Amino acid sequence: MSLPLSAKVPFGGDYNPEQWPEDVWKQDYRLFDTARIDLVTLGVFDWALTQPAEDTYDFTLLDRIVERASAEGRGICLATGTGAHPPWLAKAYPEVTRTDFEGRKHRFGQRHNSCPSSPVFRRLSTELARRVARRYADTPAVLAWHVGNEYGGACYCALCAAGFRNWLRQRYGTLDELNEAWYTTFWSHTFTDWDEIEPPSALTEHWRGPDHTAFPGITVDYLRFTSDAMLTNFRNEKAAIRESSPTLPVTTNFMGMYRPIDYHRWAPHLDFVSWDNYPPDDESAARMALTHDLMRGLKDGQPFWLMEQTPSCTACRDVNPLKRPGVMRLWSWQAVAHGADAVLFFQLRASRGASEKYHGAVIGHAGRSDTRVFREVAELGAELERLGPASLGARTPARVALLFDWDSWWALELSDGPSRLVRYQQVVLAYHRALWDAGVDLDVVAVTADLSRYDVVVAPALHLLKGDLPQRLEAVATRGGSVLTTYLSGRVDENDQAFLMDVPGPLGQLMGVRVDEWDARGPEVVNPVRLSDGADHIDVDARLLFELVIPQGAQVIGTYQADFYAGTPAVTRNSFGAGDGWYVAAGLDQAGVSWVVRQVLARHDLLGPYPDVPDLESAVRVAADGSRLLFLLNHRAEPVEVTARTGGVDLLTGDRTAAGGALRLPAYGVVVLEEDR
Amino acid sequence: MSLPLSAKVPFGGDYNPEQWPEDVWKQDYRLFDTARIDLVTLGVFDWALTQPAEDTYDFTLLDRIVERASAEGRGICLATGTGAHPPWLAKAYPEVTRTDFEGRKHRFGQRHNSCPSSPVFRRLSTELARRVARRYADTPAVLAWHVGNEYGGACYCALCAAGFRNWLRQRYGTLDELNEAWYTTFWSHTFTDWDEIEPPSALTEHWRGPDHTAFPGITVDYLRFTSDAMLTNFRNEKAAIRESSPTLPVTTNFMGMYRPIDYHRWAPHLDFVSWDNYPPDDESAARMALTHDLMRGLKDGQPFWLMEQTPSCTACRDVNPLKRPGVMRLWSWQAVAHGADAVLFFQLRASRGASEKYHGAVIGHAGRSDTRVFREVAELGAELERLGPASLGARTPARVALLFDWDSWWALELSDGPSRLVRYQQVVLAYHRALWDAGVDLDVVAVTADLSRYDVVVAPALHLLKGDLPQRLEAVATRGGSVLTTYLSGRVDENDQAFLMDVPGPLGQLMGVRVDEWDARGPEVVNPVRLSDGADHIDVDARLLFELVIPQGAQVIGTYQADFYAGTPAVTRNSFGAGDGWYVAAGLDQAGVSWVVRQVLARHDLLGPYPDVPDLESAVRVAADGSRLLFLLNHRAEPVEVTARTGGVDLLTGDRTAAGGALRLPAYGVVVLEEDR
Amino acid sequence: MSLPLSAKVPFGGDYNPEQWPEDVWKQDYRLFDTARIDLVTLGVFDWALTQPAEDTYDFTLLDRIVERASAEGRGICLATGTGAHPPWLAKAYPEVTRTDFEGRKHRFGQRHNSCPSSPVFRRLSTELARRVARRYADTPAVLAWHVGNEYGGACYCALCAAGFRNWLRQRYGTLDELNEAWYTTFWSHTFTDWDEIEPPSALTEHWRGPDHTAFPGITVDYLRFTSDAMLTNFRNEKAAIRESSPTLPVTTNFMGMYRPIDYHRWAPHLDFVSWDNYPPDDESAARMALTHDLMRGLKDGQPFWLMEQTPSCTACRDVNPLKRPGVMRLWSWQAVAHGADAVLFFQLRASRGASEKYHGAVIGHAGRSDTRVFREVAELGAELERLGPASLGARTPARVALLFDWDSWWALELSDGPSRLVRYQQVVLAYHRALWDAGVDLDVVAVTADLSRYDVVVAPALHLLKGDLPQRLEAVATRGGSVLTTYLSGRVDENDQAFLMDVPGPLGQLMGVRVDEWDARGPEVVNPVRLSDGADHIDVDARLLFELVIPQGAQVIGTYQADFYAGTPAVTRNSFGAGDGWYVAAGLDQAGVSWVVRQVLARHDLLGPYPDVPDLESAVRVAADGSRLLFLLNHRAEPVEVTARTGGVDLLTGDRTAAGGALRLPAYGVVVLEEDR
Repeated sequence: MSLPLSAKVPFGGDYNPEQWPEDVWKQDYRLFDTARIDLVTLGVFDWALTQPAEDTYDFTLLDRIVERASAEGRGICLATGTGAHPPWLAKAYPEVTRTDFEGRKHRFGQRHNSCPSSPVFRRLSTELARRVARRYADTPAVLAWHVGNEYGGACYCALCAAGFRNWLRQRYGTLDELNEAWYTTFWSHTFTDWDEIEPPSALTEHWRGPDHTAFPGITVDYLRFTSDAMLTNFRNEKAAIRESSPTLPVTTNFMGMYRPIDYHRWAPHLDFVSWDNYPPDDESAARMALTHDLMRGLKDGQPFWLMEQTPSCTACRDVNPLKRPGVMRLWSWQAVAHGADAVLFFQLRASRGASEKYHGAVIGHAGRSDTRVFREVAELGAELERLGPASLGARTPARVALLFDWDSWWALELSDGPSRLVRYQQVVLAYHRALWDAGVDLDVVAVTADLSRYDVVVAPALHLLKGDLPQRLEAVATRGGSVLTTYLSGRVDENDQAFLMDVPGPLGQLMGVRVDEWDARGPEVVNPVRLSDGADHIDVDARLLFELVIPQGAQVIGTYQADFYAGTPAVTRNSFGAGDGWYVAAGLDQAGVSWVVRQVLARHDLLGPYPDVPDLESAVRVAADGSRLLFLLNHRAEPVEVTARTGGVDLLTGDRTAAGGALRLPAYGVVVLEEDR
Repeated sequence: MSLPLSAKVPFGGDYNPEQWPEDVWKQDYRLFDTARIDLVTLGVFDWALTQPAEDTYDFTLLDRIVERASAEGRGICLATGTGAHPPWLAKAYPEVTRTDFEGRKHRFGQRHNSCPSSPVFRRLSTELARRVARRYADTPAVLAWHVGNEYGGACYCALCAAGFRNWLRQRYGTLDELNEAWYTTFWSHTFTDWDEIEPPSALTEHWRGPDHTAFPGITVDYLRFTSDAMLTNFRNEKAAIRESSPTLPVTTNFMGMYRPIDYHRWAPHLDFVSWDNYPPDDESAARMALTHDLMRGLKDGQPFWLMEQTPSCTACRDVNPLKRPGVMRLWSWQAVAHGADAVLFFQLRASRGASEKYHGAVIGHAGRSDTRVFREVAELGAELERLGPASLGARTPARVALLFDWDSWWALELSDGPSRLVRYQQVVLAYHRALWDAGVDLDVVAVTADLSRYDVVVAPALHLLKGDLPQRLEAVATRGGSVLTTYLSGRVDENDQAFLMDVPGPLGQLMGVRVDEWDARGPEVVNPVRLSDGADHIDVDARLLFELVIPQGAQVIGTYQADFYAGTPAVTRNSFGAGDGWYVAAGLDQAGVSWVVRQVLARHDLLGPYPDVPDLESAVRVAADGSRLLFLLNHRAEPVEVTARTGGVDLLTGDRTAAGGALRLPAYGVVVLEEDR
Repeated sequence: MSLPLSAKVPFGGDYNPEQWPEDVWKQDYRLFDTARIDLVTLGVFDWALTQPAEDTYDFTLLDRIVERASAEGRGICLATGTGAHPPWLAKAYPEVTRTDFEGRKHRFGQRHNSCPSSPVFRRLSTELARRVARRYADTPAVLAWHVGNEYGGACYCALCAAGFRNWLRQRYGTLDELNEAWYTTFWSHTFTDWDEIEPPSALTEHWRGPDHTAFPGITVDYLRFTSDAMLTNFRNEKAAIRESSPTLPVTTNFMGMYRPIDYHRWAPHLDFVSWDNYPPDDESAARMALTHDLMRGLKDGQPFWLMEQTPSCTACRDVNPLKRPGVMRLWSWQAVAHGADAVLFFQLRASRGASEKYHGAVIGHAGRSDTRVFREVAELGAELERLGPASLGARTPARVALLFDWDSWWALELSDGPSRLVRYQQVVLAYHRALWDAGVDLDVVAVTADLSRYDVVVAPALHLLKGDLPQRLEAVATRGGSVLTTYLSGRVDENDQAFLMDVPGPLGQLMGVRVDEWDARGPEVVNPVRLSDGADHIDVDARLLFELVIPQGAQVIGTYQADFYAGTPAVTRNSFGAGDGWYVAAGLDQAGVSWVVRQVLARHDLLGPYPDVPDLESAVRVAADGSRLLFLLNHRAEPVEVTARTGGVDLLTGDRTAAGGALRLPAYGVVVLEEDR
């Protein structure tokens, strides 16, 4: 099972004609024609519509919606509609709503509101998915199934407590195993009956919120359980779909770097990955690239769908700026550059009421096509038509891997000590940024991924080590590769118990260092670090965390310049096999991180084509026939000109560029160069 | 029914002799004599005293208190005492306490603590009002009835849920109407049974607090319901009073710009308005003026009572500064200038214990009269005696209206998008400030007010439009008036649904513009705006919100100077009929707002007498006999001297001022000039 | 009953071998030998271990642990282990978990989690203490009993409500008395049945958290009740211990300036005081000195045990810096200087899992002894061995008392008005800092302490006055002493009711001033104050609170320089008897406070030996045989040299210093000078 079939990159997005009288539908499709919109995602929140009462299913309106889309020649991504349950269900079965971290039982409202352990929710959501699939499986326009919506959140009710205990029985078998894993001798927590175990919440193990827990082992397990419980919801619906639709691909829309759900555990169960790109700010080009790569890495490099993005602005942020002219196009092409095989919006027509009425849409409240936003959407539609199938299925040829690990994320951010200011994402973003600036094609992969294909493995803040990862990292170095890791790596095992050995635990041999103590300081405290490649040096700043390194064979690359540990190592490189292990012991600033990362990349000749042009992103995709597409994306509001490193044809304009010739990109400009072979 | 009868401005305030032994009462009245205090507000929190058990009413002590006040020749504002229920009531009837937004059922404590929907509370509070009125209706000293106290807060209990459903049935008739109004197709919210509807709270539609709701339509309706439910409480007590007191005026004390209660819906049910003036800071002269005008506007310009103010300091703020010498007097006269026909304090004697023991009082814990505060109170008492009846009943001759609308306040601040940083009050305050600086006499009125008497109507952030307001605004312009509105106006109908037309919706014709998109930015982002009257120009800053305006006939008055929309309109003026419509599309700074407002005022020759003297407030009241009182208030800590625009006699000193002569006000000085006719 | 017997300062700390296999124990003791660790605190969280089910007690493992410690020749501080209840208990008796301030019933989790009023908890914790004592009372190695752990927190359940009502009956006898004490006439709160009384919480009298209450009188009483309820828990366990262990000293570990528990009410019930020193930051030298003195003052100057400190870093703060080299030693000696007769760590071996795995330990996860931390611990162990018994039982010869009063702390910080920014600890810390800088030996004592032995009594922010304290303060002055107090003193009686007299109430005669009003301002507002001793003057800043003083005989020492009260007194001195009363009416900065304090000290010739050397702390202890130990502690990271005021021998090095000779201390250096007699 793989991606939905399409002759070009599908273009369109969420469409809710059930909110409008039918005479509006016709206007919509005329505008879709104008904009070359060829795919609509239907029915994402239709449960109350399709099942108005427990014993009544009514597909009358959805039939008409699907028929119209089919008749208009659009592809359909059809949702099961279970992302929000209807009022009657909450009223009839109070069990179906969630109990929050504070212990408050919720009543009907909002969305993503169903207890994942509720038998009633499981039964009825599965039945709805079954009926939707049965009814529309043979509709040729339906290209894919969309299950639920943006799974997330958590529940702490008695049903979830029972589910948690069952999950724990599966995991640990006996209470002795569980007590040992959770280190319950501490603070008199030895459990003598499974029923004594409570979900970790504000009423039990937590204080000051979800990140402060007396027993991180319990909390990490509850995060795993919650992720698995929702995965069961997804799998149940998927199985019901499969009863009548054996081959159409099934997905659900992910949310990028979303902490509550371990997408690595989910990905094997999706036929293809799709995700919603709502960056938290306007300076997110590198972060979006990372997230695209993470999403692509979920299924071993298989392309994904960009299921949602806003054409103009969001509504949910405190301040919702416009995407400046050209930015929506630029970010859309960035998605394609990193593996998106569909470019979709939320939303095609703006809703009149409720909380998303100010969320941007292709068609606004006035229904106009002569707006800037509509015009840009239509231009992008034309470009994608021009591109045709060239990028579909193409793969990223990465020799660099960045490890991303939900368990480490959870363990690090739940930890009391050494510093709450060290945030997993920030560390990962800094190392990714260095790679991105260098123009490297990289994969963002799970710690379980096959590392044998990479020359460089970057593993920032790899706090929790599980399985045979240390051995596989050593193997990378043994065969000549480089492994880079940082402070706060190699600290705990999968139960969040400290390794009973020198820090960085099982990574110590590879890194050739030992760490006995570490200093944490507020953001106002800087310790300068001098980095030297033997010939030249630069001085950078370090902040937040400073491990005190005692080399055990490693060569010193950087040293602290201040405090009582001035002169001791802050960065080291250890020869290991034919390769090496790099250890960054302190929170270097971006310049420091980039310097170290480029040292590593340079040893493997892995710098991208334009590593010194700021904010000029490059990314390569290689099609099945071997053709190479080089995407160049200018994230600046000013034009940029470079000397082309390779020749080729820009698929968006048909213009040829010769190697060595001038390549000019306007502000926010995009080139998709099919490179000469 | 109108204001209580009095021969001069009543002077006094809240008095709680029930907290003291009777020998203290005598001392109090000697001090009241000294200070010319002629009115006491009694019994505001006396429920536990007057009804010590469900079947026991005991007026013994209140009788003595009332008798003493009568004997001492004071007027009485007598409270029903229902602002806090007694402990026995909460114990006997747990229904009577509130359930908060977080879903927590409260137990006995605090004040303003009664569920407004509770049948027991309704029955017993009404019965108490009935008995108080019956007992004291014939006491000649009683001038007015004071129902409850500072109505506010909210409740989310099952009784309120039931009350809400009934209220909705009245409003919508059918669930189809309700579903359409609330746009429930969104997020699977279609209600199929009235009982499925829940109060919008942290347990249902909200997250991140009361302003973040999945369905603003539901939340706005709950705000309306809550306001109405408490109004029912008030009306029930008033009706019970009327049984034995057919003519004495009834009021309750309002709180100015208080978001939870729509005072425009309440005002028709009060005989006269009274309010408690506790400004949030010490820089509030303009804000207080606005609030006085708002309170006066509630009943079509009828004077109001200043029911509470502190003689010195508050206790409830984190930091409670003293009113500097002269400030209490200045602010008291400001109240009179804007329509107050009584000047009252909370409190006459400081309580010994509980949470208000440090709240300022005319008589402090040591019982002294030789304090600065007592001295200033006594001097004001003497001044008010000197003024006599001159200002009683006098009206403000306003030709400018500022629209104030609770529905717009709610809708704007509940909205997801475009910006949580745009706050309704801030926008209104900026436009009011411009008018106030210009010395304009203005009315602050509801959107339902008769606009035919105004030359200029200023309608900032008029987010929600209801009824025939657009037509009435157009009528203002048609007959030669000016209408000014701003960004984020004309967006939604009374159900908080976007208008299906160009922004600013039904105001578009009058404004002659169309807005397709809008940019929101953080407070650190400035877009300079150049404002020009054709001859001269000034450059000002705009922040937070920037609408992109496409003129549809309007003349450009100001343009953005930066960003991709540099050169496009930020302020426009549209000729309409004999008048015009002014549209301010961006968050101009105070200088910019003032420039625009003065452009408008100048066209109608409406600037006040001293528009260029900073912080010299002017306000006019016209008595029934036509005499004009010009109040001049110097809010500066330095003296100010102006050339008198009109001649007259200062009623506080008897001094004559000739037109063209020098008029000097000391720091915090006040002049009440009866202008020559 | 007094301190445990020991031949030298016990050295060691919390030790949890039950978390480890027995083969680790042997390694531990070898390392303890190296570090001269001679005391282990055992079993602090062992309840789940020693009572695995309600009817099962199992001391097998604890027996082995105690046997091993005995066999290794270590002293034992043996805990009852009741600081956290086991899971089975919470499951069997839901009453045993707490209900929090928000009204949320907790379920099993964390520690310090037992409702102090729960009969089941009381029965079972007492029984466990009984059995532990019975089993180990005759073990010679056991030197002391450690009851519970860090008592604290609060509970608001129905059992506590009932307990509160009983406590109130004891206190007030009748509801009339209670209503009068709580001033319930205010806001209709008159209670007519004991059962109407609710614990003051977010559901009853509070808003915006625990410090904002409608009735501070109720809240202060609940704080007293809570403190007493936990004291009952402690006393029950102690009584059970006494059944089999009539003479071994009993303690529990206090937490210094910990607001929820009034340690002055507890101290008589402990045989000796012990406390855990975790300063909130790294700049806490003076604060720690204050806290040590407070702890020593709890039992009339009797030495205490430093029960816990970290050897390196904490884990519970957001940022957990390392103690720099030498700092752990310095702070340990500071404890001894102020009266510690034991120096103990939490913890001897780091736990592998749960929330304290990153809390510093003598032995880390790698089990090494060649770490900086272990080395410093071992060096300190050797030093303490060198010191031997010299300091045991020695007393601080203080002629200055600083009053510390939990009631004033509570009353001040619960108060609505005048300023939430005035924090009790901050005021006390400023006055203590001035005394500490001056090198004064001082006692920090309760307001009930015998003041007849002091020449100077400093009473900052003595908000609540109870008993005969005013008379006793006057007596200090009468016989020639000085009493210093500040703004916000003498305001309320023990029921938090304002005194019906001039401020500062019963302190007015002694201070010779009267205060009618007070100004509170934000931290950005400075009023300069000029302080003058008649000859010279200095100008300092005052902030936050400014009382307006009218001298009633007092001499003016300092005057405000700004605002409408410029020129009026800010600091006064009143001759009274043979002594005087000093009144500081404003929030002086540290320079101002120090100037005033040194004026007072100078009159009594009480400055320490090196009052002008910054951060050089001096403290004296006098042994039973009259020998004087002068501790000098250099808190700077740089060396310091002074001219010795007295000669003696440094007990740490054996070096002699002659009076008048040079005394040099390295960075963070310590000298323990046995002064020549």
